[in-house]
Amino acid sequence: MTSSKYDVLGIGNAIVDVIAFTEDDFLLAHQLAKGSMHLIEEEQAEKLYQSMGPATIISGGSAANTMVGVASLGGSASFIGKVREDVLGQAFTHDIRSIGVQFETKPASTGLATARSFILVTPDGERTMNTFLGACRELGPDDIDPETVEAAEITYLEGYLWDPEDAKAAFRKAVSIAHRAGRKVALTLSDSFCVDRYRDEFRALITDGAIDILLANEHELKSLYTTSDFDSAVKALRDEAPLAVVTRSAEGSIVIDKEGVVAVPAQSIDRLVDTTGAGDLFAAGFLLGHVRGFSHEEAARLGAIAAAEIIQHLGARPETRLKDLAQENGITIS
Amino acid sequence: MTSSKYDVLGIGNAIVDVIAFTEDDFLLAHQLAKGSMHLIEEEQAEKLYQSMGPATIISGGSAANTMVGVASLGGSASFIGKVREDVLGQAFTHDIRSIGVQFETKPASTGLATARSFILVTPDGERTMNTFLGACRELGPDDIDPETVEAAEITYLEGYLWDPEDAKAAFRKAVSIAHRAGRKVALTLSDSFCVDRYRDEFRALITDGAIDILLANEHELKSLYTTSDFDSAVKALRDEAPLAVVTRSAEGSIVIDKEGVVAVPAQSIDRLVDTTGAGDLFAAGFLLGHVRGFSHEEAARLGAIAAAEIIQHLGARPETRLKDLAQENGITIS
Repeated sequence: MTSSKYDVLGIGNAIVDVIAFTEDDFLLAHQLAKGSMHLIEEEQAEKLYQSMGPATIISGGSAANTMVGVASLGGSASFIGKVREDVLGQAFTHDIRSIGVQFETKPASTGLATARSFILVTPDGERTMNTFLGACRELGPDDIDPETVEAAEITYLEGYLWDPEDAKAAFRKAVSIAHRAGRKVALTLSDSFCVDRYRDEFRALITDGAIDILLANEHELKSLYTTSDFDSAVKALRDEAPLAVVTRSAEGSIVIDKEGVVAVPAQSIDRLVDTTGAGDLFAAGFLLGHVRGFSHEEAARLGAIAAAEIIQHLGARPETRLKDLAQENGITIS
Repeated sequence: MTSSKYDVLGIGNAIVDVIAFTEDDFLLAHQLAKGSMHLIEEEQAEKLYQSMGPATIISGGSAANTMVGVASLGGSASFIGKVREDVLGQAFTHDIRSIGVQFETKPASTGLATARSFILVTPDGERTMNTFLGACRELGPDDIDPETVEAAEITYLEGYLWDPEDAKAAFRKAVSIAHRAGRKVALTLSDSFCVDRYRDEFRALITDGAIDILLANEHELKSLYTTSDFDSAVKALRDEAPLAVVTRSAEGSIVIDKEGVVAVPAQSIDRLVDTTGAGDLFAAGFLLGHVRGFSHEEAARLGAIAAAEIIQHLGARPETRLKDLAQENGITIS
């Protein structure tokens, strides 16, 4: 195993978020399940955009947000994902590179536009996502650069990658390269509806040993084991996954491995604005902490600090240098 | 004089803001005068964008922000400004219409892209703007619809309109239609560098009676009368303008007319994030209050409430319904 160039490589859908505040009634009228991610086609996207309020455009994408978080925490990160050569694709590329994330995936020069997620934020801070995958459908195995995967301590994958057909093949290729190089693979389950679509395949990935670190929130975990009982789901997970972290919003997180279960409280906040990216930024802190040899508890604390920053403003990209924020909270990242 | 359909019609540059947090060192390195608006060409814009950090894209434009503020306060507003038929032009159009502002200016189908302002926000919350005017240069007298001007109680103009050649002619046409219809005309001086570019012309507009209500901040006022003494500038303004409001950031505002000078304190805030749009939103509150027959003091208080909302988050478009915010602060807008 050669020395690593990246703490974490993220592979995911390259998405620009179009975020608007809304009321619960709007979700009801449009039959949108609150807190989830829905896939929509171009025509639906256009209709939804026309009916939603003034919007803010901020680069997003789950694994991309996590890589920006890793970079903001002072780690080294790389990202693989597909945009189209268009204005929003340029914005995505600018934003992720300008914070120091290596991003060299060739943009699509034809076909559908850069992906966008229309995100509706309700007064309780919860976000409901409606994603037009666009150019993300073009991501395939050829975009997985073996040298980059080999150079990363952890390759981090989104469950969302299971949605576009070719991305799934790219996912499998990355797992195989990473493990051959003696590296670790992490997976986020992404969304409970996503788990619903691919439950058996995700279960197989975990039990087959393709995944070394699993990240999920409470809803996704319950969906994975089709139970409404959190403790039973945790027990099932402990039997199957070597290392897993489950986030529970304001109730903090738990880290699960063969040794046992550690609970870590959430970081306190002044004002909840928008939960978009909370899980993504938690993952950034936890994964970087793990790579840097932190205890599970300390890694989860770093995740909680990063998540607390992101939910106090609009969008899933940090507005503060997270490395400094960690330092203020007593965690030094060298 | 027929009954009015709009409380306020705003005419200005239709701009999309590309906003990033930065450090003071970045401004120094790029020789940018903090707190001002600089005009830049496409090539400079590209260079600046490449060197700045991750950005958030939010519709902007001074008079456009003010019209959105008027609508958010529960008033009726219209806007005239020029975008190009492109992705950012569509975003601008969506954002302003979705909050209920009437916006029917024909977009340019050829020529330069929709205008964008690259805004750098320093840790003190101050913003430094770098504007590529793009399609705004296409705004001309033909875009001034007489019926719309006649239907508005106040026609509100940006000093920035003096920058694109044809916009100046559009400005003059609007003033003449408004006054012929017995309506009022308001002007914001926009920026102290802008005043520097057009001092004599702005002075002439005021003394010739083209302007019924003048809005300025302290720096712009001092620049207009080329003095560093605020009191002398106020005295000069009182001699020339029938009604004027001068904002002084945390020190509040003063309203000046022939009767005297009224000082109104700023609204207290929890946390200063980004001053972009503070003056624009103050104008929204003051102008709507004026149209609705509020006292100068109460109109300025409404302006202060709107300005306080905008500086506590990124961007110059409200994230809260300002009418509700005014109500919470004891001001009912019917």
